[in-house]
Amino acid sequence: MKLIIAIVQDEDAPKLIDVLMENNYSVTKLASTGGFLKSGNTTLLIGVEKEKVDEVIKIIKEFCQSRKQVTTSPSLTTVSSGVYVPYTIEVQVGGATIFVVDVDRFEKI
Amino acid sequence: MKLIIAIVQDEDAPKLIDVLMENNYSVTKLASTGGFLKSGNTTLLIGVEKEKVDEVIKIIKEFCQSRKQVTTSPSLTTVSSGVYVPYTIEVQVGGATIFVVDVDRFEKI
Amino acid sequence: MKLIIAIVQDEDAPKLIDVLMENNYSVTKLASTGGFLKSGNTTLLIGVEKEKVDEVIKIIKEFCQSRKQVTTSPSLTTVSSGVYVPYTIEVQVGGATIFVVDVDRFEKI
Ligand code: NI
Ligand code: NI
Ligand code: NI
Repeated sequence: MKLIIAIVQDEDAPKLIDVLMENNYSVTKLASTGGFLKSGNTTLLIGVEKEKVDEVIKIIKEFCQSRKQVTTSPSLTTVSSGVYVPYTIEVQVGGATIFVVDVDRFEKI
Repeated sequence: MKLIIAIVQDEDAPKLIDVLMENNYSVTKLASTGGFLKSGNTTLLIGVEKEKVDEVIKIIKEFCQSRKQVTTSPSLTTVSSGVYVPYTIEVQVGGATIFVVDVDRFEKI
Repeated sequence: MKLIIAIVQDEDAPKLIDVLMENNYSVTKLASTGGFLKSGNTTLLIGVEKEKVDEVIKIIKEFCQSRKQVTTSPSLTTVSSGVYVPYTIEVQVGGATIFVVDVDRFEKI
């Protein structure tokens, strides 16, 4: 038995938890903040058989992949020939940090 | 040294923490939600000597045992000879998921 | 790879997280309450290379050392020659509980 501790972005968490539960994985959601990833993040505890670790990590990678989001910043503008042009800025979103630890003993009561 | 990560139902947590502390176990309570168990749950971190793992699990089993609660549902009624009869429904409460992991190093400062 | 689970006092957490991040450690902050330490506390997850465990523990010890704080209690006073004298009371603050667990597998995506 292994315990997967996954720290993911808040916005990726609901979909990921859904998919994991549809695949019959048990997930516990802890609230967490900052550090590993810039914005708010969520820590998940997922207990799985050793043989399932790869599949869970594959699912996390699929739903939490690091990606760029283009967003327009209303506060940053350039003046070009008298016209204010909003900057578009690229923001890195997604990503995950995953720790897999061995479980000595597992009990479900 | 072992670290016991126990996910229990919110309603069972206060009594369990009380009993563990009366037995001189140190308990840290993390907020957690959904997943392993249907309703709100609480994650506890309990650091113990290897020899004490059995006793802690026994205490958790005693205070978090899975049990059925009969409750009347006001929204579900049957009409029997013109009389509204409230349904009684059985709800599963309690239960716990316990992970025991080995601790390489433990420091209390 | 090791996962350091550190439970520290709320008031020591911000400075500690700052210093750890300035030293390029990734920190995830979980909310936690009571138990190991009397007042509100914070649980940190810090993933580090085996060789860095000592340094992280040294930093935690430096910023979370157990110490006495002298505080005046407005509710406790002695009357001495008609003058109310506030009691000063010593409160134990700081302290930390640290678990280091081995990480089977670590992924950052
Ligand atoms: Ni195992
Ligand atoms: Ni040990
Ligand atoms: Ni390792």
